[in-house]
Amino acid sequence: MKFVTLADVRAAAGRMEGVVLRTPLLSSLTDTGRSLWLKPESFQPIGAFKLRGAMNAIACLDAERRACGVIAYSSGNHAQAVAYAAKRYGIPAVIVMPDVAPRIKAEATRAYGAEVVEVPIGEHEATAHALAVERGLTLIPPYDDATVVAGQGTVGLEIAEDLPDVDVVLVPVSGGGLASGVGVAVKALRPQAQVIGIEPELAADTAEGLRLGHQVDWSVADRARTIADGLRAQPSELTFAHLRKVLDGMVTVGEDEIRAAVRALARRARLIAEPSGAVTTAACLFHSHELPPGKTVAIVSGGNIDPALLATLLA
Amino acid sequence: MKFVTLADVRAAAGRMEGVVLRTPLLSSLTDTGRSLWLKPESFQPIGAFKLRGAMNAIACLDAERRACGVIAYSSGNHAQAVAYAAKRYGIPAVIVMPDVAPRIKAEATRAYGAEVVEVPIGEHEATAHALAVERGLTLIPPYDDATVVAGQGTVGLEIAEDLPDVDVVLVPVSGGGLASGVGVAVKALRPQAQVIGIEPELAADTAEGLRLGHQVDWSVADRARTIADGLRAQPSELTFAHLRKVLDGMVTVGEDEIRAAVRALARRARLIAEPSGAVTTAACLFHSHELPPGKTVAIVSGGNIDPALLATLLA
Repeated sequence: MKFVTLADVRAAAGRMEGVVLRTPLLSSLTDTGRSLWLKPESFQPIGAFKLRGAMNAIACLDAERRACGVIAYSSGNHAQAVAYAAKRYGIPAVIVMPDVAPRIKAEATRAYGAEVVEVPIGEHEATAHALAVERGLTLIPPYDDATVVAGQGTVGLEIAEDLPDVDVVLVPVSGGGLASGVGVAVKALRPQAQVIGIEPELAADTAEGLRLGHQVDWSVADRARTIADGLRAQPSELTFAHLRKVLDGMVTVGEDEIRAAVRALARRARLIAEPSGAVTTAACLFHSHELPPGKTVAIVSGGNIDPALLATLLA
Repeated sequence: MKFVTLADVRAAAGRMEGVVLRTPLLSSLTDTGRSLWLKPESFQPIGAFKLRGAMNAIACLDAERRACGVIAYSSGNHAQAVAYAAKRYGIPAVIVMPDVAPRIKAEATRAYGAEVVEVPIGEHEATAHALAVERGLTLIPPYDDATVVAGQGTVGLEIAEDLPDVDVVLVPVSGGGLASGVGVAVKALRPQAQVIGIEPELAADTAEGLRLGHQVDWSVADRARTIADGLRAQPSELTFAHLRKVLDGMVTVGEDEIRAAVRALARRARLIAEPSGAVTTAACLFHSHELPPGKTVAIVSGGNIDPALLATLLA
């Protein structure tokens, strides 16, 4: 297996300039007893880090193939990321979504100019593969791809550049693209820093897998229990291998802790985070004793939360 | 009268490094039909731009006088700004607040190490002046001070540096410290840019005053009607003179427009803004035809909104 390198991440950074925001580090929630900075990927144009991987993946296609267009299956942030990135390249994009996805997600994806194909749940992956062949489109995977991992790794590159003496980086883990890329970049630039993956207890397949030393398979139904809807995937062979190599540990957080972290980010850091983006903050607030000491960056991976849910959590 | 200069603003910028956040420009709400960037001062450590002026004012005191401590009267963001800045300098701070101010504001100010003196409403200004003399403290005014204006002007300096071809800068107007400083910096660095002040219709004393060519006095009761509680002050002689010189126009926004702008910022830009901080966005959303065309920056001046109010606006 070929591992993603710091050079790959650096190259990715060069390919997304002017489209992806270099998010700031915000010093915040200092009453957690640690020096804590938040990295708010919620401010990317689509509201989540996923744009980084999509931009790099599309940039890495050869020009002829790219011009034919791209396709992705997702009902979440990856859908909007691919749609947005394709629009920036002026190429066609098709997004296959389960027809049970909230209408607002299909609308948002169409607003970026993508064609949305809605199919019964469970069929979207197969439909995407079939349509890719039929129409000559290139499939952009959500995480099982070296160019996607390298793209997400630019989050780690920016952290290491902006806080060169960082001690601890907290990163949400789902399919593992973000955690893999961030780990590669941070460990290359600051080997003594510890990169800790954060999962919901209800979707802690990676914590279990790393403990056992091999991938484990949690049922979709089990993983669907968490409110953190962006953390219900599990790593591929590629990302699991990266996680084994670059993560220094895993910490899991409870559902009430995730809700409290969304609330704390809004009330005290004036940040709107989706539950998946708030798990790293939940770890700082409720599991600080399980984390290494020192200067800590918590990646707030996205901000696409249903306003009604946010209202409920704030009230 | 001595006007604040670009050199004053540049000097102020040098005095706040490491304390004040250089806030990013966030490309957002592009469906308003203009190229729009938000400048989120909500991410300053105290949640509002006021920290800039307080830091510069305290930095400009001679060391002996500074060591004796500072005092301010405010129930809003200026209170926390002075408390926080004083703490960074390791000097005593006394904040005089009306005893009707929300308990949470006094708590937040005490959390920064300041002594909070609560007095009956209407007496806080006189009390502050008396205590200043009695205890040898220096009063830090919220806006009627050249060092405060220069400090707030660093917002404009950053805008001109980060978007050198900016065409339009939208800035909330209350006491006029922010608008004066931003105007000085932007007009010096980018003379062809237009700096437009934004006020609530219900506290539009400056719009009226600039139209008439002299200051006008709206009653406190009139100005208190707006939900934008940070925009209920009116300029001093110093700031009004600056506003006459540096503003290219004023636009006023309605109360429902302010509420809708808070909602739009949360839902679509994932930003938590207080009503006062949302007036510039309200101008873009509902008064675009009254604004000059071109690349526009809307200053989101603060994010200290009551969570219950935010929840109501989101639901």
